Amino acid sequence: MNAAPTVSWPTDGLSFGGDYSPEQWPREVWDEDVRLMREAGVNLVTVGVFSWGLLERSPGEYTWGWLDDVLDLLHANGIAVDLATPTAAPPSWLLRAHPEVLPVDRDGTRQHPGGRLGWCPDSPVFREHARRIVDAVAERYGKHPAVRLWHVSNELGGGNARCACDASVAAFRVWLRQRYGTIDAVNAAWGTAFWGHTFTDFDEVSLPRGPRNGAPNPGLFLDAERFSSDSLLAHYQLEKAAIEVHSDVPVTTNFMVGAASQVVDYADWAKHVAIPANDHYTIVDDARREQDLAAAADRMRGITAGRRPWLLMEHSTGGPSWQERNRAKEPGEILRNSLAHVARGSDGALFFQWRASTAGAEQFHSAMLPQAGTRTRVWREVTALGRAMQALAPVQGSTVEPARVAIVVDEASGWAMQTGLKPHRALRYARELRAWHRAFFDRQVLTDVVPLDADLDGYDVVVLPTLLIVDDTAAARLAAVVDRGATLVVTYLSGVADEHARIRTGGYPGAFRDVLGAWSEEFTPLQRGERWSLDDGETVTDWAEAVVVEDAEVVLAYTDGPLAGRAAVTRRAAGGGAWYVAAALADDSIQRLVDRIVEERAVPRTVTGPPGLEAVRRVGRDGSAFLSLVNHRADPVTVLASGTDLLDGSGHGPETVVPAGRVRVLREEPVS
Amino acid sequence: MNAAPTVSWPTDGLSFGGDYSPEQWPREVWDEDVRLMREAGVNLVTVGVFSWGLLERSPGEYTWGWLDDVLDLLHANGIAVDLATPTAAPPSWLLRAHPEVLPVDRDGTRQHPGGRLGWCPDSPVFREHARRIVDAVAERYGKHPAVRLWHVSNELGGGNARCACDASVAAFRVWLRQRYGTIDAVNAAWGTAFWGHTFTDFDEVSLPRGPRNGAPNPGLFLDAERFSSDSLLAHYQLEKAAIEVHSDVPVTTNFMVGAASQVVDYADWAKHVAIPANDHYTIVDDARREQDLAAAADRMRGITAGRRPWLLMEHSTGGPSWQERNRAKEPGEILRNSLAHVARGSDGALFFQWRASTAGAEQFHSAMLPQAGTRTRVWREVTALGRAMQALAPVQGSTVEPARVAIVVDEASGWAMQTGLKPHRALRYARELRAWHRAFFDRQVLTDVVPLDADLDGYDVVVLPTLLIVDDTAAARLAAVVDRGATLVVTYLSGVADEHARIRTGGYPGAFRDVLGAWSEEFTPLQRGERWSLDDGETVTDWAEAVVVEDAEVVLAYTDGPLAGRAAVTRRAAGGGAWYVAAALADDSIQRLVDRIVEERAVPRTVTGPPGLEAVRRVGRDGSAFLSLVNHRADPVTVLASGTDLLDGSGHGPETVVPAGRVRVLREEPVS
Amino acid sequence: MNAAPTVSWPTDGLSFGGDYSPEQWPREVWDEDVRLMREAGVNLVTVGVFSWGLLERSPGEYTWGWLDDVLDLLHANGIAVDLATPTAAPPSWLLRAHPEVLPVDRDGTRQHPGGRLGWCPDSPVFREHARRIVDAVAERYGKHPAVRLWHVSNELGGGNARCACDASVAAFRVWLRQRYGTIDAVNAAWGTAFWGHTFTDFDEVSLPRGPRNGAPNPGLFLDAERFSSDSLLAHYQLEKAAIEVHSDVPVTTNFMVGAASQVVDYADWAKHVAIPANDHYTIVDDARREQDLAAAADRMRGITAGRRPWLLMEHSTGGPSWQERNRAKEPGEILRNSLAHVARGSDGALFFQWRASTAGAEQFHSAMLPQAGTRTRVWREVTALGRAMQALAPVQGSTVEPARVAIVVDEASGWAMQTGLKPHRALRYARELRAWHRAFFDRQVLTDVVPLDADLDGYDVVVLPTLLIVDDTAAARLAAVVDRGATLVVTYLSGVADEHARIRTGGYPGAFRDVLGAWSEEFTPLQRGERWSLDDGETVTDWAEAVVVEDAEVVLAYTDGPLAGRAAVTRRAAGGGAWYVAAALADDSIQRLVDRIVEERAVPRTVTGPPGLEAVRRVGRDGSAFLSLVNHRADPVTVLASGTDLLDGSGHGPETVVPAGRVRVLREEPVS
Repeated sequence: MNAAPTVSWPTDGLSFGGDYSPEQWPREVWDEDVRLMREAGVNLVTVGVFSWGLLERSPGEYTWGWLDDVLDLLHANGIAVDLATPTAAPPSWLLRAHPEVLPVDRDGTRQHPGGRLGWCPDSPVFREHARRIVDAVAERYGKHPAVRLWHVSNELGGGNARCACDASVAAFRVWLRQRYGTIDAVNAAWGTAFWGHTFTDFDEVSLPRGPRNGAPNPGLFLDAERFSSDSLLAHYQLEKAAIEVHSDVPVTTNFMVGAASQVVDYADWAKHVAIPANDHYTIVDDARREQDLAAAADRMRGITAGRRPWLLMEHSTGGPSWQERNRAKEPGEILRNSLAHVARGSDGALFFQWRASTAGAEQFHSAMLPQAGTRTRVWREVTALGRAMQALAPVQGSTVEPARVAIVVDEASGWAMQTGLKPHRALRYARELRAWHRAFFDRQVLTDVVPLDADLDGYDVVVLPTLLIVDDTAAARLAAVVDRGATLVVTYLSGVADEHARIRTGGYPGAFRDVLGAWSEEFTPLQRGERWSLDDGETVTDWAEAVVVEDAEVVLAYTDGPLAGRAAVTRRAAGGGAWYVAAALADDSIQRLVDRIVEERAVPRTVTGPPGLEAVRRVGRDGSAFLSLVNHRADPVTVLASGTDLLDGSGHGPETVVPAGRVRVLREEPVS
Repeated sequence: MNAAPTVSWPTDGLSFGGDYSPEQWPREVWDEDVRLMREAGVNLVTVGVFSWGLLERSPGEYTWGWLDDVLDLLHANGIAVDLATPTAAPPSWLLRAHPEVLPVDRDGTRQHPGGRLGWCPDSPVFREHARRIVDAVAERYGKHPAVRLWHVSNELGGGNARCACDASVAAFRVWLRQRYGTIDAVNAAWGTAFWGHTFTDFDEVSLPRGPRNGAPNPGLFLDAERFSSDSLLAHYQLEKAAIEVHSDVPVTTNFMVGAASQVVDYADWAKHVAIPANDHYTIVDDARREQDLAAAADRMRGITAGRRPWLLMEHSTGGPSWQERNRAKEPGEILRNSLAHVARGSDGALFFQWRASTAGAEQFHSAMLPQAGTRTRVWREVTALGRAMQALAPVQGSTVEPARVAIVVDEASGWAMQTGLKPHRALRYARELRAWHRAFFDRQVLTDVVPLDADLDGYDVVVLPTLLIVDDTAAARLAAVVDRGATLVVTYLSGVADEHARIRTGGYPGAFRDVLGAWSEEFTPLQRGERWSLDDGETVTDWAEAVVVEDAEVVLAYTDGPLAGRAAVTRRAAGGGAWYVAAALADDSIQRLVDRIVEERAVPRTVTGPPGLEAVRRVGRDGSAFLSLVNHRADPVTVLASGTDLLDGSGHGPETVVPAGRVRVLREEPVS
Repeated sequence: MNAAPTVSWPTDGLSFGGDYSPEQWPREVWDEDVRLMREAGVNLVTVGVFSWGLLERSPGEYTWGWLDDVLDLLHANGIAVDLATPTAAPPSWLLRAHPEVLPVDRDGTRQHPGGRLGWCPDSPVFREHARRIVDAVAERYGKHPAVRLWHVSNELGGGNARCACDASVAAFRVWLRQRYGTIDAVNAAWGTAFWGHTFTDFDEVSLPRGPRNGAPNPGLFLDAERFSSDSLLAHYQLEKAAIEVHSDVPVTTNFMVGAASQVVDYADWAKHVAIPANDHYTIVDDARREQDLAAAADRMRGITAGRRPWLLMEHSTGGPSWQERNRAKEPGEILRNSLAHVARGSDGALFFQWRASTAGAEQFHSAMLPQAGTRTRVWREVTALGRAMQALAPVQGSTVEPARVAIVVDEASGWAMQTGLKPHRALRYARELRAWHRAFFDRQVLTDVVPLDADLDGYDVVVLPTLLIVDDTAAARLAAVVDRGATLVVTYLSGVADEHARIRTGGYPGAFRDVLGAWSEEFTPLQRGERWSLDDGETVTDWAEAVVVEDAEVVLAYTDGPLAGRAAVTRRAAGGGAWYVAAALADDSIQRLVDRIVEERAVPRTVTGPPGLEAVRRVGRDGSAFLSLVNHRADPVTVLASGTDLLDGSGHGPETVVPAGRVRVLREEPVS
């Protein structure tokens, strides 16, 4: 089911705030917290994420007082609460009594206490304890007026995905039995005859385990990933059901959606979440981190089918502490990051966390209120952001203008591509997704990053970056976009395998051979440092194929190397064109292809600006339009756009200048 | 024993084919397989390698029908069968019932099911089950007319070497007791007084285990390697004996002989194998991979003492899937690779595998019949190769012309050199072997790569590359070649330790000090990036020594660095010259030394061509000579050679032109 | 307690010798050993380190004869013995009977026999056996005239630090209970509310374990390190007490003090060791290894408060074998290394080891008597060193001239800095220590490298390199040096956290904000390869901060990058100046700052020479002064200094020339 759009948003206007952990501070600090939250314009905080051990200090005995006080204090100050179930951290007494709930890595090592999510989602013992505490919390606070959103656990899968404990193995066998019926169906699906791994009983099947499993059966591996995702989803649903007994407030859980391969299938999960929420952290060492952010936000919009509001649940005001070198954000970057998420569909911008902790594993993680206090640039930027979020209240409830370009991603392809013996083992799933998204991003052409089962009817251009795993039905749906006149761009490794990760024979990319009018005999990955030239003057690295052209134009061909004279990119003249990109192209090559496609299909640019100018339009139910212009460049940019900047009230038109590093959000009305 | 040369070759003419796994495909595909095999000229396929779980679906209950059909079908089509015992993959029910048969790594982790060779060769339980299935298979098919060769298991040691389970530890103690008699003899051999590890009972001894064993006792480590090799050999012999109860067909097992250090001592094993077979895969990223192939083939010839035919059991038509970037072979490379093996003594060329699998761990491994089918370059090259193999039928049964140069390799030295605390821990055993072999290879001078116990009488030049471990007897035999007038080339690290890996005192290289007339006080490995100059204009990297010259000519000396003025290479004027190469020389330095030696000793070149032209002659019992000329270069090569090219029937002489990338096999008869 | 200076030195004059392992050699070699020791001038050898298994071949049954003979032989030849308790290597029978004494790594793997120190210091079983053998050895040899020093075990912690076995966990809980009293005090100290790790019972607390503990609670981690150090110290004290029942001879144990972070807190240990001893090995690949050596020696002097003699127990004549490329020392380097230690306070120079072993893990480790024997450069240099040590007899008992500069190091800061989620995870604790020490070293300005609790009254300059962990008391003591007129140099990351590793709020570097008159809002680590420019023309790498200057001069400021115009180094004009170095400076920048400080404070240089000339003065009780001049350069150096060179008797003055690579030790008396 797709949740109805009737879900009430937890705040008036956009949500602004972050994780709040009063339990880490003495009572007197709470009053300062609330005072500073009001100063900063905070209207929503997440409470209780790691509080299980404090709420239930022994089994079934609850200590509610401090949390009662926190909720009352926040409510009295007009700050809404996103109340978390505390299951992200089992209490120490539970782990002592039942160490078997701790997850077991695939190499056979059981986690020790001290991390996050130290529990296996398949553990019956843990499920029983989790249900009890969630029930108790929901019963106590289900009607509390401060509580405007429920937050199930925290980043499920971030620590407890892929558990390989005995309980998980048992659950996996049940899952397989339900999916396949007979063990011979499993043998057939996985092709276990290879290496002689034929099973005669479900009880012979295990999850991938052990150091020798660098080369697992691809079908087993893929199903193990699906199972892990399903187990975690089942746990989410267990908690959600326990909450809904006591409360009508919407339920969410925070995803970790990015451009990379994920541990769970969020596109599937999103169907079960009232207000999908996401955590996104930029990577300091990523030279195009603003585009990584945009791709993540476009993917959040993709998994909500663009029609539901979503919420940026966590991002940061500076360095996290889990990267190698956690640098502060550049001046203005906090605002650019937050408003870029809003531009792409988030109805809020929350941070991890409100007040920087002084102890614990993440003691060096940045926060809204830094360790250095309020006399800081970060605090000034946070309060400025709070004012901006208030000024953007009219944007809440509007939706992002429909995109004409879709980029299709699917977890199964990510999982399958990055494991086991591959033609090129160092390729990451995010590579082509990022590369193609960037080319549109730098032309101010909006893309939806959509799941494999998305409705593609509205798109003029559909891009499949390394979509390795496709079943016959999906393959037919994707190919059909050409029949109805759209453009299809298929990159290398797409369609090569079926839903069981079995390779399609007869030439690559199996599922798309016919629609492309071209196919490959062989993969020819390039070695480290190797480059072959194309006739557009650029070079190919990492990936090439021996393409056979049957019914297509050769768009790019090799001018040297063992494939000299053969095609690297082809285009079949059907519908809006069916492109096969059979090589890992340079950014400039991809840009030229995207420019040609955008021009051929007359795909509109939101505005016309230089690379690094981000432009997205949201449209309200009343037809009002909000044009966000985020200038990531070091120089000012002038674009054809008119309206009143909600952030500073200034009027612009027919041209608008966006200063270097700044953001404008124009309510698009002609200026007199 | 050396097998008598009376073994009947499994095919008429050279063998051509590959691993065939009909159990991975529906019955209808089998007919296509056989039709295409005939089209390609296939005359030998390996069947049954991973079929245990299909043949014996529960203990002692056999399902023979499908394999009966396969053998009958092949036989009806004139295709011989190399029938494998199916022990490479224990059935799932066996691993479920007896997980203790799975090998245990030295870090203490027991393998999980899902790989290959998931069994410990010291497991009594596994041995019992293995003997039963081998007996059953041999009984059923021992007289089947299709079966022309037995193939014991698969790549023994490739997954189950160095098992450190309790059964292996117990077996190791028995092995030690047999070898040493008393525990004090073990203490003495290993020098356990160091670090206070004196044993008082055999039961205190274990195999090297645990993460702290980066610094094991060198004697213990070396004996553990010997024991592991012996255990695997004992398993081979167990299977061989079970087969021979029912069958007179020759027995083989596929080795993994290359230029690098191996997990088992193939020189020892070869004595027990009727038709030694080898698997060889080129490394895409190796710029001289054709020379790596030649070195491997020369080593196969070395361990069969050059007198017995051997068989290339596996190579590939393109990328395997276990390298980082598995590139397709270059046009013509399949033919060059196959015929280079034949030139160097293989009486056939088989591939892994016939038809590319679509599932399983190696689903991206290349095959004779690619996933893209017969409309492919690979299929065209495979069928061309099949025609070439047929044309080369006269070569079968001939032997390679005797070499005048021997390069001595020994597993003990490889094992000892690459483990534990060493003067230079990053040096690999293959380094000097490859470097010296290359210098002869690039001059078309044939080398035998022979084991330590080889008969050296026929050689004019004997090279010892980093032969670290030598007992007194071997040292005397090696030094004696100088007495009889041959040339001895000893590189650094040779003769430094005895058979228990104890260092010989009195100056390095202990065992060869006298014959060389020079010795070293100290090792002086160079740091990363460091280079010292020699008076031949080249530089030394990685390894240098402080040489004391007593009775020798200084051939090369340092011109800078801490050893400036001291010798890097010396030559004692005795016999044909006794060279000490006390440094890791550049390729050009080695080439000049080899050129000098070849000239001094008048070692004949097979032909005189540029580097990259490979030339080897085989001679039939009737005196007919077959000169293989493999041109690995990008330009044509002209050499003085005459005869009829068996591949295309063309006549040549007195000069023969070998086009770029092509192969000629001349039956050397003057052309009129 | 600080040991009284009444400890009698084990030798007349300086000590010279090394580890001696006669048990590795037949009896006839012992006579040659003693003859060659006398030839070399050896007067002290360490005996018995790894002899437990030979002395006690079954529990409680002792075999003393061979050791009796060794001690008698040495004594008869006038060679003193440093007798080791043999606990570094438990006998094999003990490990067989009680495998639970073997340490367990934090990843849960129990060590296997075969390394060193294979026992947990918290094991009651091991303690019982250790006490018995130590008692027996001390009883037998406590009055033996050869024994002049006791050597407890060997490099305690080098293999058995951070044990995480169940016995250690139990002991850790006892340790915590003693330190904190209540579990809530632990919760408060560690801030366990973060990530919900609140404990309700001491039995819920464990040591950091498991692969997910890359992000342990910083307070838990720091206390675990303290506990490990305390456990090892307790073991030392157990052995010491057992010895002192039978012997009045002083007791030592060999530390592993270097410039880097250590596994135990030697500054604390040194208080319990009569003659602190150190093992130091140079790193071949360290371009300034002579300065690393100097820093280690200055730290040994720092932990003995400069008043007690210490002893260089181990160093090497060439490569050890545990580095990647173990190169021989350069000509003269042995002498330079040994005499540099003596110059900085060691009253001797011992080596690992006397005679090179031929077997065992360290068979390629260099020794005084090399494997190549006495016809070697190493032997010539060793005997020359022996003559030098004899010539330097007058130096024994003198003390190093008091330094005016102190560099403060503390293990807690090292432990905390290199673990867990940090702003910059690749920074090593030794980095700034080495960098600042080098700048003084290259100006011949002596520094004491002192522990946090050192008396700082005598110092004009106090440098705190990345002193992350400081409690309030220490912070006040350190700041107070400014009040009394000294100069304080505080680098980045200092004072950031308290004794529980909790971050001090209000701006970095929390504990030193006031004294510095400057503080930072945020850390801004630079990415790999990134460099920002300073107005001194140099660049900053790795670390920068956003400094707020309140009451300080800006000494260096950024000229580009995100901090352009902001301060990198500040100086508050109070006392002798309070410097904040808020960036990872280039060597040249640090040199200029040090030069300015040295000039401002008129800190005397021992002599005035170029970088690479090492100069240190020792002063006898009678006022005699010994000036060591070690020329690490490739050219001769001339300095203003007068006296008689004890090494060759030559007179010098008013200038002294030190030839390239040579050492002079002047008794500073005017030459007529």
